[in-house]
Amino acid sequence: MKKRATAKAQKAGAAGDLAVEMRALAGAARDAARVLSFAPSARKDQALRAAAAAVRAATRTILAANARDLRAARAAGQNAAYLDRLALDPKRVEGIAAALEEIARLPDPVGRVTESWSRPNGLSVKKVRIPLGVVLMVYEARPNVAPEAAALCLKSGNAAILRPGSDALQSSLALCQAFAAGLRAAGLPPAAAQVVPTADREATYALLQLDDLIDLAIPRGGPALIRAVAERSRVPVVKHYQGVCHLFLDESAPVEQAVAIAVNAKAQRPGTCNALECLLVHRAAAGRLLPAVGRALHERKVELRCDPTALTILRRAGVPAVAAVPGDFGKEFLDLILAVRVVPGLDGALDHIARHGSLHTEAIVTRDLEAARRFEREVTASAVIVNASTRFNDGGELGLGAEIGISTTKLHAFGPMGLTELTTQKFVVEGAGHVRS
Amino acid sequence: MKKRATAKAQKAGAAGDLAVEMRALAGAARDAARVLSFAPSARKDQALRAAAAAVRAATRTILAANARDLRAARAAGQNAAYLDRLALDPKRVEGIAAALEEIARLPDPVGRVTESWSRPNGLSVKKVRIPLGVVLMVYEARPNVAPEAAALCLKSGNAAILRPGSDALQSSLALCQAFAAGLRAAGLPPAAAQVVPTADREATYALLQLDDLIDLAIPRGGPALIRAVAERSRVPVVKHYQGVCHLFLDESAPVEQAVAIAVNAKAQRPGTCNALECLLVHRAAAGRLLPAVGRALHERKVELRCDPTALTILRRAGVPAVAAVPGDFGKEFLDLILAVRVVPGLDGALDHIARHGSLHTEAIVTRDLEAARRFEREVTASAVIVNASTRFNDGGELGLGAEIGISTTKLHAFGPMGLTELTTQKFVVEGAGHVRS
Repeated sequence: MKKRATAKAQKAGAAGDLAVEMRALAGAARDAARVLSFAPSARKDQALRAAAAAVRAATRTILAANARDLRAARAAGQNAAYLDRLALDPKRVEGIAAALEEIARLPDPVGRVTESWSRPNGLSVKKVRIPLGVVLMVYEARPNVAPEAAALCLKSGNAAILRPGSDALQSSLALCQAFAAGLRAAGLPPAAAQVVPTADREATYALLQLDDLIDLAIPRGGPALIRAVAERSRVPVVKHYQGVCHLFLDESAPVEQAVAIAVNAKAQRPGTCNALECLLVHRAAAGRLLPAVGRALHERKVELRCDPTALTILRRAGVPAVAAVPGDFGKEFLDLILAVRVVPGLDGALDHIARHGSLHTEAIVTRDLEAARRFEREVTASAVIVNASTRFNDGGELGLGAEIGISTTKLHAFGPMGLTELTTQKFVVEGAGHVRS
Repeated sequence: MKKRATAKAQKAGAAGDLAVEMRALAGAARDAARVLSFAPSARKDQALRAAAAAVRAATRTILAANARDLRAARAAGQNAAYLDRLALDPKRVEGIAAALEEIARLPDPVGRVTESWSRPNGLSVKKVRIPLGVVLMVYEARPNVAPEAAALCLKSGNAAILRPGSDALQSSLALCQAFAAGLRAAGLPPAAAQVVPTADREATYALLQLDDLIDLAIPRGGPALIRAVAERSRVPVVKHYQGVCHLFLDESAPVEQAVAIAVNAKAQRPGTCNALECLLVHRAAAGRLLPAVGRALHERKVELRCDPTALTILRRAGVPAVAAVPGDFGKEFLDLILAVRVVPGLDGALDHIARHGSLHTEAIVTRDLEAARRFEREVTASAVIVNASTRFNDGGELGLGAEIGISTTKLHAFGPMGLTELTTQKFVVEGAGHVRS
């Protein structure tokens, strides 16, 4: 009994120490953020270029750290796809350095005046972009996330706290050390990019309590990670969550476009969040469209999980397909699997999407102007796409430059988050002794 | 023991019922929000005008409900200021109706294209304003908040769930019933504006768990309310929190401007969040400025709580003042009390504000261009004000139209939140069969 009490006290003490340590880390980030908030663009870019050089120079150290991560992950029985995401090689390290240089070339959003006007009393009012402050990034295995997120945060004037999955910890620490060298070279505080130096999950939970020091938490990863962060956070969270993306083939959809877009959306990179997960087909066009679309998808090795009507049509056309189970609608497969459903028409598609969509990306193929307009207006999703692949919902493809992720939270930023979305706006008001009457 | 177990089970059962009831209420709001999201402006305005008429027609019922609230609040021993905030009379009810009509006249932000561009491959990209969805407003005693927040939400295409303090429940229910009549008259779902029909706090906590149905929670009120909401919410929260507003009198500040702005900021309406709480004075100008400013504030019955340097200067000048205790700096008095401190210069003022400010409103009086520019750039606050009163940080004064509050959360909206800030943006992408290569 006494022994247990001691163990409990020790555990509580350790948790207390961890909380103190995380508060110190976040406090250092907050101090660094104040310096960054008005650092000139040229200095931030200088730091990014110096960080790129430091990453290149540290390639050997970074690969050695990555080898330690890989060994541990292999011993823990992780599969080949996972190990591939985790693995670095000289080419990937060079890719990281090049990404930092590319971010240095992007325009700086900070200080941009987005609107300005005068009031009848002569007061001048401006809205000016400013950094958010301290951004906590919670992610999983890809080691490139640490330097790239740190770079996007730095360019937008924010300090970054990086919390990798435990499997990527050594790689992230090594990469971040090089990044910090870049900051120092430009005379900026190295605490502007810190990796949480422990694999203990309680460290994340302690950080998520610090809403006086951290301005934004961005979880990127699977449902379990997102849920754990959202449930425990007092810090505002922008979720980068799953994409249950639909494509609706309208009555007027041309068959070649329907085939090309469905195949591209589903099969080009099925593991991404903007890949297609559910095909909806207008009843009046199902007989015309489904056999060709189904055949093309089957040739790309896509398993078709169909509602009874779609199943009948496909089987009649000799396209292999299986019956869907209810859970297949609204599911993110991230694999060569597609749910297929015939709907009575546009209203049915809109209802299905309102019920099963995840606010990520929704697309229609149509030649009908009114259908396109209604789809654009009535669908709520971060991107609503007409006659193009769902795969275009991506910061690079939409022209935003590098992205830190795709937000499925409506608040603050909805869709791809680039540099601008890592800022907020303050009002700057100038008077000549004005008082309120 | 058995009795206790039964009581516990009953309590758990009641909590379960409440959770079910709140989920039903939020689900109805979500369904209404889908209809509102693409309702034409004319129909929303029609509903607002009909609601104004219904409020006027129901004046007697509303006042009777308010009398019940007042009786209960008086029995609970609330003070006169509190009872005044809670009280309605025919003039105040008319004011509410007029406010609804004014909101009907504001421009509708929904559907506004804020940016659009073409990609090199010919894809057309637009950012379009859309409603947030369902907004939960948690507030205290003012009964006008329910219809006015409901109106701002409706105009911006959002459904509102209104959670008044228990003292304002009967008044809020009566006002909302009239509002719902307006919605019905325009053929819009009355669930677009619902008052939580119970005084049980657990109802709020149950709603704050429903991040699948509610898009934004806005707590407006004292620190205890804000903390309770922020700590328990899984729904994104935009806080409308305290204003610990500073005014820095720079070395070059003209004495008449310093006096006029300090008096207006502190004494015009000391109970508001944009009222001044702390005066900082440049050491080199303290002897010149403080006696006149202090005297004018004293004449307005403001108690001056001073650091040793300010205290010496004021006493020497014969201005009554007391010594500050450390907690006076960073405190929101909401009363005729002002903390006063002499700082070594601009850097000292910037450090003090970074440490004690609440991100609300910060002002400087100066004739020096470089000091003004540095203050504008280096201070983080929702409004940074040069040569004008802190009292201008207000949606109406800045020209945003009616406001739902002043956000001190940097995420999503920072500062006064008008109709635009009750929306988000989606990407609308149009192609001609585009696929990603």
